[in-house]
Order: sequence, then structure tokens, then C-alpha cells
Amino acid sequence: MEKLQNYINGNWSISSEDQTTPVINPATQEVLGRVPIGPNTAKDLDSAVNHAHAAYLEWRNVPVMRRVQPLYKLKTLLEENSEEISRLITLECGKTIHESRAELQRAIENVETACATPTLIQSEFSENIARGVDEFMIRQPLGVCGCIAPFNFPGMIPFWFLPYAIACGNSFVLKPSEKVPLTMMRVFELMEDIELPKGLVSLVHGGKETVDAMLEHPKVKAISFVGSTPVARYIYSQGAKYGKRVQAQGGAKNPVVIMPDADLDVTSKIIADSVFGCAGQRCLAASNIITVSDVSGTIKESLFEAAKLKRTGYGLDELVDMGPVISSQSKSRVEMLIDRGEREGAEVILDGRNCSIKGFETGNFLHPTILEGLPLNGDLVKTEIFGPVMSLLPMNSLEQALEFINGNNYGNMACIFTSSGASARKFRNEADAGNIGINIGVAAPMAQFPFSGWNDSFFGDLHGQGRHGIEFFTQTKVVIERWPKEWTRKF
Amino acid sequence: MEKLQNYINGNWSISSEDQTTPVINPATQEVLGRVPIGPNTAKDLDSAVNHAHAAYLEWRNVPVMRRVQPLYKLKTLLEENSEEISRLITLECGKTIHESRAELQRAIENVETACATPTLIQSEFSENIARGVDEFMIRQPLGVCGCIAPFNFPGMIPFWFLPYAIACGNSFVLKPSEKVPLTMMRVFELMEDIELPKGLVSLVHGGKETVDAMLEHPKVKAISFVGSTPVARYIYSQGAKYGKRVQAQGGAKNPVVIMPDADLDVTSKIIADSVFGCAGQRCLAASNIITVSDVSGTIKESLFEAAKLKRTGYGLDELVDMGPVISSQSKSRVEMLIDRGEREGAEVILDGRNCSIKGFETGNFLHPTILEGLPLNGDLVKTEIFGPVMSLLPMNSLEQALEFINGNNYGNMACIFTSSGASARKFRNEADAGNIGINIGVAAPMAQFPFSGWNDSFFGDLHGQGRHGIEFFTQTKVVIERWPKEWTRKF
Amino acid sequence: MEKLQNYINGNWSISSEDQTTPVINPATQEVLGRVPIGPNTAKDLDSAVNHAHAAYLEWRNVPVMRRVQPLYKLKTLLEENSEEISRLITLECGKTIHESRAELQRAIENVETACATPTLIQSEFSENIARGVDEFMIRQPLGVCGCIAPFNFPGMIPFWFLPYAIACGNSFVLKPSEKVPLTMMRVFELMEDIELPKGLVSLVHGGKETVDAMLEHPKVKAISFVGSTPVARYIYSQGAKYGKRVQAQGGAKNPVVIMPDADLDVTSKIIADSVFGCAGQRCLAASNIITVSDVSGTIKESLFEAAKLKRTGYGLDELVDMGPVISSQSKSRVEMLIDRGEREGAEVILDGRNCSIKGFETGNFLHPTILEGLPLNGDLVKTEIFGPVMSLLPMNSLEQALEFINGNNYGNMACIFTSSGASARKFRNEADAGNIGINIGVAAPMAQFPFSGWNDSFFGDLHGQGRHGIEFFTQTKVVIERWPKEWTRKF
Amino acid sequence: MEKLQNYINGNWSISSEDQTTPVINPATQEVLGRVPIGPNTAKDLDSAVNHAHAAYLEWRNVPVMRRVQPLYKLKTLLEENSEEISRLITLECGKTIHESRAELQRAIENVETACATPTLIQSEFSENIARGVDEFMIRQPLGVCGCIAPFNFPGMIPFWFLPYAIACGNSFVLKPSEKVPLTMMRVFELMEDIELPKGLVSLVHGGKETVDAMLEHPKVKAISFVGSTPVARYIYSQGAKYGKRVQAQGGAKNPVVIMPDADLDVTSKIIADSVFGCAGQRCLAASNIITVSDVSGTIKESLFEAAKLKRTGYGLDELVDMGPVISSQSKSRVEMLIDRGEREGAEVILDGRNCSIKGFETGNFLHPTILEGLPLNGDLVKTEIFGPVMSLLPMNSLEQALEFINGNNYGNMACIFTSSGASARKFRNEADAGNIGINIGVAAPMAQFPFSGWNDSFFGDLHGQGRHGIEFFTQTKVVIERWPKEWTRKF
Repeated sequence: MEKLQNYINGNWSISSEDQTTPVINPATQEVLGRVPIGPNTAKDLDSAVNHAHAAYLEWRNVPVMRRVQPLYKLKTLLEENSEEISRLITLECGKTIHESRAELQRAIENVETACATPTLIQSEFSENIARGVDEFMIRQPLGVCGCIAPFNFPGMIPFWFLPYAIACGNSFVLKPSEKVPLTMMRVFELMEDIELPKGLVSLVHGGKETVDAMLEHPKVKAISFVGSTPVARYIYSQGAKYGKRVQAQGGAKNPVVIMPDADLDVTSKIIADSVFGCAGQRCLAASNIITVSDVSGTIKESLFEAAKLKRTGYGLDELVDMGPVISSQSKSRVEMLIDRGEREGAEVILDGRNCSIKGFETGNFLHPTILEGLPLNGDLVKTEIFGPVMSLLPMNSLEQALEFINGNNYGNMACIFTSSGASARKFRNEADAGNIGINIGVAAPMAQFPFSGWNDSFFGDLHGQGRHGIEFFTQTKVVIERWPKEWTRKF
Repeated sequence: MEKLQNYINGNWSISSEDQTTPVINPATQEVLGRVPIGPNTAKDLDSAVNHAHAAYLEWRNVPVMRRVQPLYKLKTLLEENSEEISRLITLECGKTIHESRAELQRAIENVETACATPTLIQSEFSENIARGVDEFMIRQPLGVCGCIAPFNFPGMIPFWFLPYAIACGNSFVLKPSEKVPLTMMRVFELMEDIELPKGLVSLVHGGKETVDAMLEHPKVKAISFVGSTPVARYIYSQGAKYGKRVQAQGGAKNPVVIMPDADLDVTSKIIADSVFGCAGQRCLAASNIITVSDVSGTIKESLFEAAKLKRTGYGLDELVDMGPVISSQSKSRVEMLIDRGEREGAEVILDGRNCSIKGFETGNFLHPTILEGLPLNGDLVKTEIFGPVMSLLPMNSLEQALEFINGNNYGNMACIFTSSGASARKFRNEADAGNIGINIGVAAPMAQFPFSGWNDSFFGDLHGQGRHGIEFFTQTKVVIERWPKEWTRKF
Repeated sequence: MEKLQNYINGNWSISSEDQTTPVINPATQEVLGRVPIGPNTAKDLDSAVNHAHAAYLEWRNVPVMRRVQPLYKLKTLLEENSEEISRLITLECGKTIHESRAELQRAIENVETACATPTLIQSEFSENIARGVDEFMIRQPLGVCGCIAPFNFPGMIPFWFLPYAIACGNSFVLKPSEKVPLTMMRVFELMEDIELPKGLVSLVHGGKETVDAMLEHPKVKAISFVGSTPVARYIYSQGAKYGKRVQAQGGAKNPVVIMPDADLDVTSKIIADSVFGCAGQRCLAASNIITVSDVSGTIKESLFEAAKLKRTGYGLDELVDMGPVISSQSKSRVEMLIDRGEREGAEVILDGRNCSIKGFETGNFLHPTILEGLPLNGDLVKTEIFGPVMSLLPMNSLEQALEFINGNNYGNMACIFTSSGASARKFRNEADAGNIGINIGVAAPMAQFPFSGWNDSFFGDLHGQGRHGIEFFTQTKVVIERWPKEWTRKF
Repeated sequence: MEKLQNYINGNWSISSEDQTTPVINPATQEVLGRVPIGPNTAKDLDSAVNHAHAAYLEWRNVPVMRRVQPLYKLKTLLEENSEEISRLITLECGKTIHESRAELQRAIENVETACATPTLIQSEFSENIARGVDEFMIRQPLGVCGCIAPFNFPGMIPFWFLPYAIACGNSFVLKPSEKVPLTMMRVFELMEDIELPKGLVSLVHGGKETVDAMLEHPKVKAISFVGSTPVARYIYSQGAKYGKRVQAQGGAKNPVVIMPDADLDVTSKIIADSVFGCAGQRCLAASNIITVSDVSGTIKESLFEAAKLKRTGYGLDELVDMGPVISSQSKSRVEMLIDRGEREGAEVILDGRNCSIKGFETGNFLHPTILEGLPLNGDLVKTEIFGPVMSLLPMNSLEQALEFINGNNYGNMACIFTSSGASARKFRNEADAGNIGINIGVAAPMAQFPFSGWNDSFFGDLHGQGRHGIEFFTQTKVVIERWPKEWTRKF
């Protein structure tokens, strides 16, 4: 199995690094490729950045209506190749083919939204701020922008950034997750046909060494990161130390509140999809399911039934509802956390441990798991599990639910299921989270809106997607202009 | 002379710290007060932040149209007391009374612009992002916002932040410069009458210990800083380490290009005002004056005449054009840098060293100084002097000027004087600085525009003033809402 | 009783017209003044417009941050004189003093919002739309703007337009309603002290002749009108004939839907306030009260009780809930329409006809009136009554209510009372009206939002208030600028 | 030659009208088709509108991100078929193939800009306008929108409106010019493949009867018109009479000022392109060429040379610079106006009358014509010629030029050629025209900016293209929402 190649300066090229780590199909343990990882990847990064910088110097002067033309082509290519890319996502990341298709659709929507850059990049003009003096603002690109992507959405997350960055006149260097590099490699192959200048977009494989090289490189002006909270903190702090602008998105422990006036059948299905979708490995996965005044246990029962119906299996099987987690280590970690839940006093009312899928016995599978009785002051209710585990937390009132939610350090998502306008309003007004769902299980903002993590789920101020992407990827230049009337030439 | 008091929780109170440092009138060396400084100021800060947090929890729920009412009152009070405040600025900071009045006017304009918050804080609503699903964004406040202010604009710089912060629903803790704390103390006295809740705005004296306490305090969510570049870097990096959002504005070394087609009389006067105004102690002071193709030396002569006309003296004297620098150390440092310029090979064609003003012999005065012949590859052309020193740098073309300018690490301001639309456009398009002046000597953005430093002149992404202030002082909350039609009650 | 004076070119002056019509206190029939009305008022209008045009030519060049300064002063003056102005509103228009105060508060909020014009008037700048070509937009004023105001909000409606118009650099000519000219005369007296240039704002009394003179005057560039639908149609059509831009707001017949899940006590009180507030004389008064599935009659009973509690009387009495209608003709017309309702088949379950208030026996009073059983296909359910009359229309479902509402020609307001998020969302999505209330009785947009009538309730496209006011009162100028690089002077 | 078919309800169908008028190739007099014209076309229009209304009722509920998908496809189809469409434009309208290609490119740019509708249609949300009350705005579609297009840009002008209208959820009925219906017929054939619902876009042939039917039809809510000023006035006034919103663009008489500091070679070529491009038949054609202080006659000579170089001929010939005017009547009219110029006292220094092109002797050709010495107070300097005629108007100063320009009734475009920033600024600030060119000959706003005619060149307030298109094609709905906290269900 050969080492995967980098895409630098418009060419696929071999890394300077000899060490590698395998890319593994999490359902089959098949090795899909080998990613270079080690100190020499810093040289690859340096080369990519230098070429990116050169490309930027030309690209910044290309009119923005021309700069978005490749994005229109990219939209078409992604649509035409969506099935192939979706399968690739499933192969290396494990999620079901349906989930992969949905993921790619979100990527395409970001490409579309970035096509609006000629309008969105417009800035303000004021005539006559003083007599004869005008003032206006220009948004100019930053230079080389770097992106460090996570494993859980190989096809989508780079698109929260890439299309906006280049539409704004920047160049872009992507380090995909070493666990799922293949999807973006295929996407970059497609991008060879959209007439971007050489070097404008690069893909550099690697691990921490590549990350550090990106953080320290003086020509990299901005870093977009998505991953766990500890790493997000590191990226934000290190990026700042080197004077860069940073948007760093971290982990989550997302609560969902079910009020007794919610429609149970619909609600349970949606929540089960949120908890177990992508095997729980998404930063908007519901985790703490707060049932308010479920005295008769109806909600609990309904959730239990919905969870049990989930078919675990190989993601390429169209009938499967849930794939494996990303690695055997991850599987062990999730199982260990379930164990810890038991030790904290919870009952495992649906146990997904020791899961074996016929034909895929080596896969990193877990079945849907439900914990009941976790103590609210314990650790697990505040720990990101990143696996298919639901905690049922019965409470007495919306107020109690909000107090619990707002005591959590994360702030990625909070959802409520209710038919009451008043409960919904109170919830969206008071919950400390940046993405709020009302009768929605996965409150992922559309591409026109910022993906708004709060607290430990985000470090920085400008989020990804839409107008906020335009703001992050440009710097403001204010011009004050005075043309004294007396300088009008008289003849 | 008593220790100056802090304003915490709506009361003036004595610091926990016994050590103090004097506030000195830079023209007379008179001690105007004593600022507490030392480890115990951290306790003051902690108290202010805790009260500010409590105030925030109420204030955030006050409708924004009510939250701006105190700002309307503040505008009126600042106007009514402008002469007194302006004199105070001059007393402690040294600039001329004319400069103090202009400074205060800029503060008032920021109060006015923050009165527009009810409109500016509006965010986006999208109906039907999917059938029956709506999505919208809310801008909610952050919590306690901290500000660390410099000595050179005691009356203005806190107002780049304070009015926006509180209009957005935050509370605000200000640490004024220990060199110029009196102006803001007077302003805070006025703010006692504008009906803000107790604790919403606080003023805490101190030095580095106060700064560090602010950077580390978990309830402080955002830091606004203006000062030198090394400190700005520290603030940005430390603020990021503690997970806060930061906007940190640093130093500058601002170039001005004079093209041969500029109107000389007007130009020279404006440039002399820019270089020597505030005794050169402003981040938008012109410093490197690039004369393009001044073969006959006409421009040089005209600048020389304009500089010589500047009357140095006590700022409260209405006839004076230039006051002292902030401290005797500062005066020594500027003189030392002029010496260094000589050593680098420059000729001091106008020498402001050894300046003594009759009646103010102990004041930190320098006369206007002009250096000629500084090497372009030397240190001084890249070193912020922060004193009344102009370097004349003759060049052959606009291209050469731009290359020199863009080789500088700072990026606060760049100006050009020309009658040519083409030269102006090339300059504003290509110069690497965030505030551009065209036939303008001090390109300070109006309150509606961001104060846009670039490169080492700014760390962060959202600048102060206007819409950008609103964005910095709010966090985005995206709500996705679905009300299934089938849930419409049938009766 | 003398003829009321016009305010033209900064002076109070006598009309050229001798004929007059009385201004009458609707509670007492006292004559408060006499308004010139007749053909010669056209001369007054012409004079006002010519002076306004001259004032505009200077004012347009005053920087916008200066242009809003008088508005800050006006806010203060209106606040300081609010009690006097509120009493004047009540005197000439009849509404209660509480209603007058609330009305004036809305006026002040528009003054505040127009203070934001320096930010709101900013327009778009795009660098490099083609290589070396920039494009931007400027918003410049129109010239003289005319306003024709109705009788029902003498203190508020001119402020939907005036502050925005002048902040944008226009001059403004107001024709107040001949029934209620005194309030604005007092306001214009206050405006003498806010340092507007002579002629910038004028007040010209009159009736149809003044209106026609305004519509036909070539120097009047824009007309803002609020009144009845037939007149709004006339204004729009005539204004268009003379090439002007027009915003013409007409009448209404506003439906409110009460769902069975609404909280009855709160709801009934709010709806009674909406129907009987201002004696029903407001374009956002609720009129058709649709009770869905009120099988037990609880809602009906609750509304009946709320209506009965309304104390009718002289508006200056602080204990009174409802004042008289504007004129004896108006009273007769309302009574006649109630009669017609009976003839159509309704039962008058609460009869406000033949109302006599002790001490004010000549006043134009009616008591709250409730009709039940009006046929849905009759005339009265589609006829604007503009008096304190509620029609109870029982229906079976929200769908039926929406079908009925959307069959109406008007589209000013539609409200729903419900605790269900789903019913509210369906209603706001589907109801054909521009101002929607959810558990709100009078859905009057705040000053930052457009007052959005639809269908026969509005003619034009840009509404009053906020950003839309800025757009209506400016014209866009697009500038495309090319400075060929080769024109940069080489030396 | 068969009657051309209408496109109604997704089908090509024969008009109810038997009378026809020929479509004629203006270079060859070849009849290209026959357009139904006469009273029965009103029936066609009625049918199209009714189907359009039905389509709208569904389409309005399609999420906007779906509604723009057909536009992405349309962009691709227009690009793929650009050569064929461009030839069709040239065939029926006469302009050169280069001009046709450029025209189509502008159409495509409007399709692209309308693809941004999901972002541009977002409106404002304000939380907590009063405690517990939220307010927001929705932009909903209008219904059926009608467009009446002129002959001079058969491929572009409908695209100023159509893509925005449908992206906003409206349906669209186009009446192309009866002189050039073929281009849009081909475009509508392409639109059959972009998956629009049946009836959403219609094309109805005809003349004044069709126009009147559209103006009077109660289901048509908005009219977009481009044509001559008298007809624009009629459309605006009639549309208003029937309560519709209208944007009606009229004629022009565009001045260009050449300052003595302009670069002559570049300038003359650009101005000749502006005057003679499209044979002078565009609303942004330069017409009055004001030469300031051209004492030596250099500018005049340079313009003369540039004009003489224009090769007149058949537009499909790639080497031709200028095609015929639209009809023989038009040719006669232009020649008559040149005659009138002579009678007014001008000298025809370049005479394009009596033009005969070899091989195309029957074509409506004129050669470039230059008039010199027209009196400034005459008629012709204010009369739109719409043919390849330049008037040279020497003046002494920019002030005189501006006075002349601002005395003109039209206000479509005004341009200046200068190297002076001060002259350019004075011109763009003071010239009474909505589209300003600085060293630009045809100041056609890009699709992101409104096409901003002023005075008699535009009636209405919201122009075409970009954000303004979104505003014109939507109506604002303001929602005020209150969910009393006490209604939060307790359990």
C-alpha cells in the first residue's frame, strides 16, 4: 500500500516524510492507504504554503465575479460525482451511505453560498463624512489560510471554509484528518478541472507536526479548525501566539429537552436519529436527553423503541441505520465510558457493548445504548462520549432543565421538543448554546448562517459559513478620501 | 495626595492595594493623584468583575431600546461638560486643549453611533429553509467585557468599546492607563447620572497585575486593548490561552507619500499636523514622510517651514500647537532614538532636542524634529518613536514607496498626497495598511467604520467602532424552528 | 378665534386663504382654532415648497453626522414637553391621555431611529469589479418631500417620515389633518430651537386643494400619505402621474383569531384594548374577532366582560379607558354601520349607541359595541368601521379563519392568540397581512421595522420607518470608476 | 412565415389573435417571424397570468435554496448556448456579434447574482423589543410579476428581473418587444430544461393591447418596464392606478465630459465605443460630448479619428464595429434629427446619413455622425436620438458642464474623463444622474448594483438588479410575537 500523495502547487507529489500511519475502513479494518506522518511533513507544509502565497499574490487581483466561477463548476462536479464521493466517505469514516449523501449536500450548499461572494463582500461607502471628505471600506483577502479538519465529516467540514476563503481572494492549505484523507483527495482531483491557479488550494497530509508547522508559519494568516475542545484550545492559543486570526471549534455534550406536550412518535424518532446518527460521532449529536415530567414513562418507552429499531451495520448497505465508530480505540473508549456510567450509578437499559455484526466481525461497531439514572452531578453527564450513547435524565421542569444545561461547559447545541410557543421561546432565549433546535434533532445551521458554537465548543469570534466566513477571510481597509475642490483644475 | 478610588458596583471605593504610582502633569511634573498599583489590585478587579457579572444577568434582559437610553443622556452630559473634560485630558496627558476637544468629540461620536444599536443588533431571519422550517439568528451579549486603555487618548479610546458593549447587554470593566486615570474618573462620575444599573460599568486602577487578573478571570469574556505591539501580542496570546475573544491594537510606524502633483502648501501643513500633533504620540501619527521625485527640494522645504511654525508649550495655552510627551522617560527615549538616527547616518535638519519651555522648564517637551537621510534598510525607519519626529525619505516612484511601505511590519495607516486619481487608487489598492488616507494626514475612521489596523498593528479579527463593535460584543445564536403542521390543534 | 398660522421658511405666517374650517374638541365641541382651507392654500404650499427647495440645496451638503444633531435635540425636547403635547393630542383628537402618551413615545422612537442615519445611509462599495475598476453606490437625497397626515395619530404619524427625510438631506413639507393641526404646530414650535436651517421643515394647513397642489408641484419629489384606502389610491395614482415616488397607506379591517388554547383572561383584555383603544380609530385596531371552536362560549363571555369594563369619557380624565370619535359625523356613521349590521342579521350583544357621558353630553361618544352573527359573506365584515365595534365571528378551524382573512381586500394586520407554536407559525406564514401579531393585539412595528401594510392597505413598495425610510428618502447613485494604471504619473 | 407561439403553462401555444406584425432583420429586411398583435392577445395574457398565479401558489412554498437550483442550471445552459443566442440577438436586433456576446454575459451575471437570493432574502430579527416580545420581518413573494421589455437588449433586459422574481417565489410573465421576440423564445426553450414548475414563467407576444391587459389584470402585482420616457410615464401612472408596484425605466440623453487632463487616445476610443456602440441604441449611450477647454482642438480631432475608424456593416461579420438601427423608420427618424441639428445651426463634421453597405443595401444603416455647434439652448441637445450621433459641445469649465448637465430632464448616466481625483469627485457628487462613469464610457452597473436612472429616466423607487431586485419582488411581513412566560406549561 503506497503512501498517499500531497497536492501542492497544482501537482500530486510524494511527501518528504517516510513514516506513515494507515487509513482504515472502520467496518472492515481494511487498510485503504497510508498517510505520511512525522517531522518531515513540516517541509511539505512549508512548500505548500510558499506556493499558496505566490498564488495568492496573483489571485487577489482577479475580480471577485471571476473568482467565483470555479465554484459554480465545483458545484456541478460535486453533484455529478456525489455517489462516488459519498461511498468514499462511508468507506473511510464508517457512516451510512445516506449520511454521507446528506453530508455532501451540505458541502455543496456551502459552495453555493460562497458563489454569492460578489454581493457579500461589498462593504460600506459614506459620502461627505465631512464636507468634501468621503470614507469607505474595502474587504481585502488575508493571504494563505490554513484548515485543520476532523475525521467525522470528511466531505463537509473543509467546505465550511475553503469556498469562502478562495472566493475572497485567499489561497488555502488543507490538512485533512489522517484518519479520513481519501475523500478530500478525490475532491481535490475534481478541483483540478475547475481552473484554479496552480498552488491556490493545497492538500498536505500529516499529524501534529503538520499542524504545528501551520500554526508557526509566518505566511499563514488564518487558521480554521474543527476538532475536540482540548485541541481547539491549543490551536486558538498557539495561533494567537503567532499573531494569526483563528476560529477553533471544539467538542460538545448536547442536551435535548422533551416536554410532555411534544408529539411523542415524531419526537422519539428524531431524537434517536440525532443520538445515533453517525454513530454519535458528530458535534451536534444529542447526548443528554432530558425528559420533563415523564411521570408515566411514556417518553422513555418511546425513545427505547426508537433506539432499538436502529439497524447497525456496514454503511454501504442501504438498509443500515448506523455504522461503526472510527477506530477500535474509539470503540474501547466508548465502552469504557459506558462502564463508567454504570459505576456512577446508571442502569444500561439498552446495551450496545459487545456488538458483533455478522460478516463484519472486526468492525468497530456498537449498538445503540441507553443509560438511565446517571447522577446530574457526576462526570459522565458532562463528558463528550462521541459514540451512540443516550443518557436519559428525568427532570421536573423546564427551569430545572435550563439550569442543568447552563451549568455545562460546552455550548454547541441545545434542543427542545414541545408544542408550546412559550416553552420554545423561553428555551431559545435562555439556553447557553449557539445552535438551538426547536423540534429539531440536529440543529445544523444552513450555509447562510454561522455555525455558532459557544463556550468551550468554540474559540474565536467569527464562525464558519455565510457572511461570517466572508468576514473571517477578509481584512477591512478603511479609506478616507479628500479631494479639495480647489484642486479641480481650472483652464 | 490621596490614592485614587475605584468605581465598583456603583460606588467609589478605596483599593485593597497600598502601593501607588503618581499621576504626573507632563508639562509641570505636578502630581495630580496617586494610582494604586500592585498585587492587591487583582482583588479590586475580581470584585468589579463579580459585580459586573451580577449586573449583566439583569441588564441582558432589558430591551435594547431601553439599554441605549443612558447613552443619549451620556452624549448630552459629555457635551455639557466637554470643556472640563478636555482640560483634564490636557492636564494629565499633555496634549493641547484643541486636541483634547477634538478627542472628546470623537468619543461623543462613538456614543452616538452606539445609540443605533437597536437597528445594528438586528440579525437574520429566513423563512422556510426547508418546508415548514424557519431559521434565524439572535445576537446575545457575552457577559463581562474588559478594556485596557492606553495613555495617549484618555478621553476617546474607552469609548471605542464601552458604549457598544453596554448597548449590546454586556457589563464593562475599564482599567485606564495608570498615567492618565483622571479623565475617565470624571467621565464615570458623569455616568452616575445616566441611570445605569449598579455594577454595570466599573473602573479599576492598576498596572500589570490588574491586566493579568483581567486576562485570567473566568467571568471576563472579552478583552479590548490598545497599546504597544509587544503588549498587544501578550494580551492576544494570553487572552486566547484563557479562551476569551480579544481585539488588541498595537503600535505603528505610519508612512505618508507625497507625490509631486500634490498641492504643497495644503499638504505640508496637514502632514506637519499629523507628525507633530499630540507630540507624535498617536497610533495614527505620520512618521516616515516619503517624498517622491522632489528633485528641486520644494516639498522638503515646505515641510521644514510647516514644522518650524509649530509652537511647543503648555497645552492649556490656547496658542500652543504642541504639548509635551507623556513622561521624562519618554522624552529621553525619543531623544535617544534621534541620536540613534544620527548614528545610522541621518542628518537632523530640524532638531527638537534640548527643548526648554519658559515657565515649564521641567516639562517633557521636545520641539519638532526632522531627520533626513535615514537608511531605508536601517532600524529606525521601522521603529515606532512615539514622539514629534519626522523622517524624510526621498524616493523615485510610487512603486518604490509601496515596496518600502509593504516591507514594514506595522499596518496601521498609510497616506498619500496627490491630485491624481490613478495614483490614489493604486495606493489604496496596494498599500498594506488598514487605514488609508488620500490627501488626509490622520486617517482615523469615523465611528461608523472599524478602526482597522493590520499586521503587527492589530491582533484579532473584529475591530472597534460601529457594526464591528456590535459583532465583537455579541455572540450569535442560531435557532432552527420546526412546528409540524400536524401539530396545529384541530378542535 | 383666529386662523391658525403656517410655518414657512422658518416663520409663522398667515395663510393667503380666508376661508376656514374649525378644529373641534370631540369631547366638548369646543372650537380650538380655525384652519385655512380653500383654493388659496395652494399658494401657501407653493411658497413652502420653494423655500424648502432652497433649504435643501444647502442642507444636502451638510455631513450626515451633523444633520442628525437636531434630531438628538428634538428627542430631548419631545421628552421634556411630552405631557403638554400629549394633552394637546387628547384635546383635538379625543383619545385618552394614556393613549396620547404612548403615541408620543412612538414618535420619539422614530426620532431615535433616524439618529442612526449616518450608519443606515451607508451604501455598497466593490473593489475591482473588473481589473482596476471599482464600483460603489451613494445614497443622495431627493429634494422636497411632502407628507399628508391623518387625524388619528396627530403626534406620531408625521414622525414616521420627517426625521428620516431630513436626516437623509431632504427638506420636508407637512400638511397635517385639518381636524388635528394643533399638535404638530406645537411640535414645530419646539423645532424652532433645534437649529434646522430656515425653510427645511414647513407646516402648511389646508384640505384637498393643498393636497393637490403638493401632488402637482414639480419640486416635490416624494409623497408620504396615511389615510383611508380610497384617498390612498388617489394619492398613489396622482403622485405617479406626476412622476413622484409615493408611499400611501390606506385603511384596514383587521382580523384577530382566538384559538381555544389561548389564555383567556389575558387574551380578552388585550383584544378589548385593541378593538376599543383610540375608540377604534386606528389602522391597527382589531375588528373581526374570530373565535375558533368556542363551543362553550367561554371566549365570547370573556370578551364581553372585558368590553363592558371599558370606561368611556373625556380623555383628559386619567381614569377613562376610551374617548370619543373624531366628529359627530363620524359618530353617526359608526352608529349607522351598527344599524346596518343589525339589518344584515347580527345581534348587538353589547350596544354602544346612544351614549351620553355626564358633563360631556355633546361629545361624540359611543360605548363599546359587540356584534354577533354577522354573515361572513355580508358587507360589514369587509367594511372599515373606524369606531369601537367588535364583530364576533365564530369559526370551526384555523384553516377556515385563514380562508376568511385572505379573502379580505385589506392587509394591514392579522393577529392570533394561541399557546401553540404550530398554530402561530401556520398563521404568520399564511395570513395575507403585512403586520402580524402573535398574542399581540396591536401589531405596530417598532421604529426599526417597516410599517408593512399589504393589498388595499398600502400602495407603493417602500414603507415608513427604519431602513425603509432611508431607502424611500434617498436615491441611489452608482459610480463606476477606472483609473488606468498607466495614468499614474511617472517622474 | 408562421405566427410565433406563446409559452404559457409550460407549453408553446398559438395566440388567439390572428393579426400579426413581422419580425425583421434590420440588416437585410428578411422577415424572421410574425408576432401576433391585436386585441385578442389580451386573452393570451389573461391565460398566462392565471396559470402563473396557480404556479405561484405552489412555488412560494418551495424553500428558496431549492428555488435557485434552476438558475444554476440556466447559467450553464446560457453559457453552453451563448453563441447561438448571441447570433439570434444580432439577427433580430442588428447589433454586432461582439455586442451580443457581451450583452448575454450581462444576462448571465444577473442569473448568478439571483443565485444569492437565499442570503439576500434574509430579513431582520430583533429579540426582546419589549420584555418577552420578539419582532422580525419576513420577505414573502408578491404573486404574478409582469415584464415589458424593449427591443435594444433582447437577451439582457428581461434578466434584470426574471431571475430575481422567481428566486423570490413569484411567477413571471414576459412580453418581449414585438421587434425582437426570437431571442427570448430561444431562452424560454432552454428554460424548459431547468425544472421550473409549469406556468411559472410565461412569454406572451403582443403590443399595446398586451401591455394594457397586463397593467389592468388584478392578479399582476408588479410591473417591470424598460423603454422610452413617455411610455415609462404611462406604465408608471397606469400601474399605480391599478394599485401595482412599478419600476419603469425611460430614455436618456447622456452627457460625457472630457477634461483637458484626460488621456486622449484611450478616452476617444472609449467614448466612440459609447456613442456608436449598438448603433447608439442603448439607454447608456453617450450622446452629448462636452469638451472642456479644448482650445487646440486636440480632443475634437481625436474623437473624429476614433469615429471614422468604426466599420459599419452586418453584425454577424466579426470585423464589423457597428450594425444597423432597428428599423427603416428609426433610420429615417435619426436622419431627420441630424437634419434638425443642421437647422438648429450645427455643422455635420462627420456625416453618416445616406449610408449604403455593400451587399446589405436595404439595411437600416447609418455611419457614425458628429455634430458640432449645436446651441446649448436648442432642442436637440435635450432630445434622445437613439442613433449613432455624437454632439460635440465645447465648454469652458467643469462648472459650466455640470450646470448644463443638471439642466437636462433625463438622469440615466453622466461620465467624466479626467486624471484628476478632485474633478472626478466634484462630478460624481454633483451630477444629477443615477449612473456615473469616471473614465468609463458606458456606466452600466454590475448585477450586484441597481441600475439607477434618475429624473425622467426612471419612475418608481426600487430599481432592477441585485438587492434592489429582491426588495422589489418581495413584500415585507413584520411579525410581533409574545409568548407570555406564564404560559410555559408547568407539570
